[in-house]
Amino acid sequence: MRQHVHPVEAELDAGSVAALRELREKARAEGLWAMPLPSELGGGGLSLRDYFALAEAEGSSDHGPAALGSASLLDVRMISAHGSPGARERYLRPLVAGEITGSYAMTEPGIAGSAPTLTQTTAERTNDGWVVTGRKWFTSGASTAAYVTVLTRTAPDELTLLMVPTGQPGFRVVRELPVLGAGGQFEIEFTAAHVPGDHVLGAPGEALVIAGTRLALGRTLRCMRWVGQAQRAFDLMCRRANDRKLHTGPLAGQQLVQQLVFDSLLAIRSARALVGHAADLVARGEQAKTGIGLAKVAAARALQQVADAAIQVYGAEGLTADTPLPMLARLGRAARILDGPDELHVSATARRVLKQFQSPDEEERAPDELVVHRDAAR
Amino acid sequence: MRQHVHPVEAELDAGSVAALRELREKARAEGLWAMPLPSELGGGGLSLRDYFALAEAEGSSDHGPAALGSASLLDVRMISAHGSPGARERYLRPLVAGEITGSYAMTEPGIAGSAPTLTQTTAERTNDGWVVTGRKWFTSGASTAAYVTVLTRTAPDELTLLMVPTGQPGFRVVRELPVLGAGGQFEIEFTAAHVPGDHVLGAPGEALVIAGTRLALGRTLRCMRWVGQAQRAFDLMCRRANDRKLHTGPLAGQQLVQQLVFDSLLAIRSARALVGHAADLVARGEQAKTGIGLAKVAAARALQQVADAAIQVYGAEGLTADTPLPMLARLGRAARILDGPDELHVSATARRVLKQFQSPDEEERAPDELVVHRDAAR
Amino acid sequence: MRQHVHPVEAELDAGSVAALRELREKARAEGLWAMPLPSELGGGGLSLRDYFALAEAEGSSDHGPAALGSASLLDVRMISAHGSPGARERYLRPLVAGEITGSYAMTEPGIAGSAPTLTQTTAERTNDGWVVTGRKWFTSGASTAAYVTVLTRTAPDELTLLMVPTGQPGFRVVRELPVLGAGGQFEIEFTAAHVPGDHVLGAPGEALVIAGTRLALGRTLRCMRWVGQAQRAFDLMCRRANDRKLHTGPLAGQQLVQQLVFDSLLAIRSARALVGHAADLVARGEQAKTGIGLAKVAAARALQQVADAAIQVYGAEGLTADTPLPMLARLGRAARILDGPDELHVSATARRVLKQFQSPDEEERAPDELVVHRDAAR
Amino acid sequence: MRQHVHPVEAELDAGSVAALRELREKARAEGLWAMPLPSELGGGGLSLRDYFALAEAEGSSDHGPAALGSASLLDVRMISAHGSPGARERYLRPLVAGEITGSYAMTEPGIAGSAPTLTQTTAERTNDGWVVTGRKWFTSGASTAAYVTVLTRTAPDELTLLMVPTGQPGFRVVRELPVLGAGGQFEIEFTAAHVPGDHVLGAPGEALVIAGTRLALGRTLRCMRWVGQAQRAFDLMCRRANDRKLHTGPLAGQQLVQQLVFDSLLAIRSARALVGHAADLVARGEQAKTGIGLAKVAAARALQQVADAAIQVYGAEGLTADTPLPMLARLGRAARILDGPDELHVSATARRVLKQFQSPDEEERAPDELVVHRDAAR
Repeated sequence: MRQHVHPVEAELDAGSVAALRELREKARAEGLWAMPLPSELGGGGLSLRDYFALAEAEGSSDHGPAALGSASLLDVRMISAHGSPGARERYLRPLVAGEITGSYAMTEPGIAGSAPTLTQTTAERTNDGWVVTGRKWFTSGASTAAYVTVLTRTAPDELTLLMVPTGQPGFRVVRELPVLGAGGQFEIEFTAAHVPGDHVLGAPGEALVIAGTRLALGRTLRCMRWVGQAQRAFDLMCRRANDRKLHTGPLAGQQLVQQLVFDSLLAIRSARALVGHAADLVARGEQAKTGIGLAKVAAARALQQVADAAIQVYGAEGLTADTPLPMLARLGRAARILDGPDELHVSATARRVLKQFQSPDEEERAPDELVVHRDAAR
Repeated sequence: MRQHVHPVEAELDAGSVAALRELREKARAEGLWAMPLPSELGGGGLSLRDYFALAEAEGSSDHGPAALGSASLLDVRMISAHGSPGARERYLRPLVAGEITGSYAMTEPGIAGSAPTLTQTTAERTNDGWVVTGRKWFTSGASTAAYVTVLTRTAPDELTLLMVPTGQPGFRVVRELPVLGAGGQFEIEFTAAHVPGDHVLGAPGEALVIAGTRLALGRTLRCMRWVGQAQRAFDLMCRRANDRKLHTGPLAGQQLVQQLVFDSLLAIRSARALVGHAADLVARGEQAKTGIGLAKVAAARALQQVADAAIQVYGAEGLTADTPLPMLARLGRAARILDGPDELHVSATARRVLKQFQSPDEEERAPDELVVHRDAAR
Repeated sequence: MRQHVHPVEAELDAGSVAALRELREKARAEGLWAMPLPSELGGGGLSLRDYFALAEAEGSSDHGPAALGSASLLDVRMISAHGSPGARERYLRPLVAGEITGSYAMTEPGIAGSAPTLTQTTAERTNDGWVVTGRKWFTSGASTAAYVTVLTRTAPDELTLLMVPTGQPGFRVVRELPVLGAGGQFEIEFTAAHVPGDHVLGAPGEALVIAGTRLALGRTLRCMRWVGQAQRAFDLMCRRANDRKLHTGPLAGQQLVQQLVFDSLLAIRSARALVGHAADLVARGEQAKTGIGLAKVAAARALQQVADAAIQVYGAEGLTADTPLPMLARLGRAARILDGPDELHVSATARRVLKQFQSPDEEERAPDELVVHRDAAR
Repeated sequence: MRQHVHPVEAELDAGSVAALRELREKARAEGLWAMPLPSELGGGGLSLRDYFALAEAEGSSDHGPAALGSASLLDVRMISAHGSPGARERYLRPLVAGEITGSYAMTEPGIAGSAPTLTQTTAERTNDGWVVTGRKWFTSGASTAAYVTVLTRTAPDELTLLMVPTGQPGFRVVRELPVLGAGGQFEIEFTAAHVPGDHVLGAPGEALVIAGTRLALGRTLRCMRWVGQAQRAFDLMCRRANDRKLHTGPLAGQQLVQQLVFDSLLAIRSARALVGHAADLVARGEQAKTGIGLAKVAAARALQQVADAAIQVYGAEGLTADTPLPMLARLGRAARILDGPDELHVSATARRVLKQFQSPDEEERAPDELVVHRDAAR
């Protein structure tokens, strides 16, 4: 990451296909391609647990997963588990090989992102599939994806995930939506877009269950990346504090700088521990909602805090693209919203914990909850 | 501001000369041009105190002062007080008329911005003036300025402010330095740049005194603008909270949103009071260092906090350029550094206050300090 | 305060009647007795506005108002405005003279203090008055009061304030309720306690209106006292920082101490400004709910923060009764609850402000609200 | 702990010898006495690692270690490692048996507690030992201890730990020093107090090394207790939030309460993870300074934060001795000072980490530091 990816981040941010291709070739050459993906599909075959040990480092750049071929992990797992034979046949190997990418479209303009049940995009049954009509936004990578997995309403009370192929007149990229100035997110429109009959994930009505499973792993991985990015900002801050001289000696000698360093390290190590705990549960396939809720908030806050601290230690230069700090600060700010606003996690996690204090019976609890309960027993 | 300036901010951010010119014509037509500038030079003739009553609103857009012709206030006051007859003759009327702009260059690459005495840009005496050699950065508007006021070293222990005309081979804009992605700040280079003999401000060696006076007013005005920008983010947040519906009613009904609203209002009103107190002292020409130190930190923090809260209430849309919030958040983040890092104000202000607790004699104190002392007497 | 009251606080905390009597005599001798009370009743006749200028200093000790005879201000105003001729005749002059004190009982055990409408204490009509039955707690000074003003339920939907004389079998002090270890608060019980017919305040059913008016002034005064107490902790902190030496010089030279000083001063000055703004509205008899909500939270937080900072600067000694800091910290912690928990003010104030953003018509607003609106207009 | 110790804490706080004796008998009867102490001395023989698994629960009451016989762990380890044969013979078995207790005196009145090298208590050599003269304070349990381990100056540049028997005219308890109102800390005086020749720990001049080792384990254990106490406050808060009803349902339904619950859980789990990491290093006898510095600050902050939150959820009742919350809040406040002020840990830990960024060679680092370094390598 430090040797090959970090140096070309500016090009990757600018959308350079050549830079990305070169990195991917290096990854393949060194046997680092698609590490967490199944070996029978051409991936590295690492278990989730083993991949978790690498994910923080891989995520120290937002382009790490794409460069190393693990960005398709969530789609590959989702299609493997819930896709039809046809969909698995058509998409899995190209995804693992990096020949195509998928996109994932949940949120709609004008609807609170935290309320998927308000979805207005509709899918109507046809002879041989569905036609989808509606608008989505904040869909990453939609402009280059081969298909978009779309949350649709297939009946008044039925939400269904459909895979919509992008190469058709019914699909349109409305515009790029720069997030704090950076690209990669799109607003898209479906106008009677055709979806083949075998492009449904699971059965109609199963959207929220499938999305929930995907989310548990997705959030855990994003948390790891945020910790990796926070660590990167931390390292930059410490080196700058040592190198920059004032009249009275290096900046590192200033207590107000030392405090930024201390509080940043505390935030990083705390987040790393909480994320690691959640990841253990996810790797074992256990209930991890409380753990993920804590990890998500801690990791997002840590990244925003440490990137902010590093900018402060750098001074004005830290505000410029001469450093990766503005990029890291942007990722940190977005982290508190894009994966579910912190407020949602705060409220939902607290309600879950408070509820456990009402039920005295340990037998009914998932392992993640037992931790709280055992604590409570003290 | 709301009717004419806010709607064209995106164009102004992109550097549109036409949009700025149109706004200026409107301002002139409505008698709002150059309000705080001396009437004998073509300005509106408002006293500082009267202008302060408008500066928060004018500053609700970062382009407000340029659009309304008050952006040259600091230069006009500085040149009026410390410029030679020739410089006054040459620059004052065009500045007030908006025909030319000036730029102000203090900080140098590789040198802590908070340590002006480490300045390495040199000015050597010639027959008819000086030649300046060195590099500066974070100079606002340097690419279009008619002259740049430069902090130079004219002797080993002598720092001097020189006005360097830009239309000469010795002056070069090295590059634009995007601050969190936004333009307007430049790195510039002087290679034996010629400075006429009457382009010195005050006498050689008086740089820090003149800069200090300029800074007191400049900081006060920037604080007012930050408060105006924070108020603008606050208003957006409140309207969004009322308008956005969840399953259970408007977002405004959520306590975690109410808390963001409350804490934001508290921050804004506190900062406004502290800025107003400092401004009173500045308008009366009194010692205001403690007051400005408190106001600067409070106003910068308030803007960063309120813009962050407003983004959180907006959700993902608040991260995009569909709202002015990313721009306000950027201004807030930069505010904690660009006008002297907060840490510097924290430390310097506290030391000043602590020192007053050592000197029992009220007579020796400036009015700003008396406030602390009278407090201390309780 | 500094010369006479602060030195004997330990005795006053321990309940010394002699110490209090001596202070009161001094106050009378110097013409400082009962300053804000009506001159026709024997008080000093200061207007609220004039008294506000003194209240912060007077409140720098929690015993200040009792020592200076202004502790009865709220009762005197309440009885003057809402008491019967008989009650006014019987209580006002002795209250102003300091011969008797009153107590005020709202909260009940087992009921959320923030929900007065859940009051379970009942008052039944008799031939010549009422009989009151119920239990109250957190009633200051109930053990020595001549009467207790009690929130009672006189009908299912009717809450009424009755003045219950304490010298009767139906009244009993159950126990003292130490607040963070300090005395002065009591749990009391009414068992068919007799209330004369003219001991009702206002008319039956007017309890919450009368209590609301009392609360507006009461809260404002408590805020002033908290600011005065915070200032006192601040002064102690600064002197200690100057006096205490480390190897490297005085503690005041440490940046982490300077930061505590700076943030404390910022909190105090902000709270003072907000309290002053609310007090202006209260003194003019205008709507001040938003202002008081902000002031209450800011002042309580400031006291807790500054007392905590001062203890930290003092080190272990600051935890002991060798300094007034534990007492100030206790007052600060209690302030966030005893006058309505901060959360209540946060939520209620934000809802009021958010609502104003819905009503476009300035005409309907009270002056306090206009401030927000005018801000919003920017 | 919950069944036997928590219910009698008020008596233990009041110094009841009978209550403590009864608890100790129960502990002995159940085989829980002196668990971490060597079995050859009559203890339970648990390894540090095994004891650490219990220490959080044991420490949920501040009286836990005394009740369960592990309070002498630090003294027993210190005397075993550094005591003379005579001292080991005389003190170890009675300490483990709970027949005597020791006290530990470092800090002196008027000297910053964080600067042991400024110690003014002197010890002069005599024929058969030393005579010690000086004053110490914040010595826990000095009034009932059989001996006090005292930091003395035995030569201008030589600091030595001496065990001073208390039953002699040269030793005097000056006064109890209530810490935020609670007892147990004493100011003591040595007036030519006699110390037998074999009552030196290690050799003269080794005081700071021995104290440092003791401190590493002592801090780790105190951190565990703080986490246990924070968890106890958390449990109380959650139960109260479920049980207390408002008009609109249980308090647990309020988002501002949910936020207190969430942030508290985050603080507890983070602190527990950091303390566990430090404890692992300590149990393995490895360098743990960075880990302990982070753990100390995190655990002390967590206890103060969670106790404060629990009080806020309880409302006024939480301020009274009807709940253990004021006691837990007091322990939390004291924790930020008594074991070295947080500021000291912040600064020292940050400086250590910053220094590691200067030395590129992994070989020279202790395992605790390698964690940082490996992080830094990303």
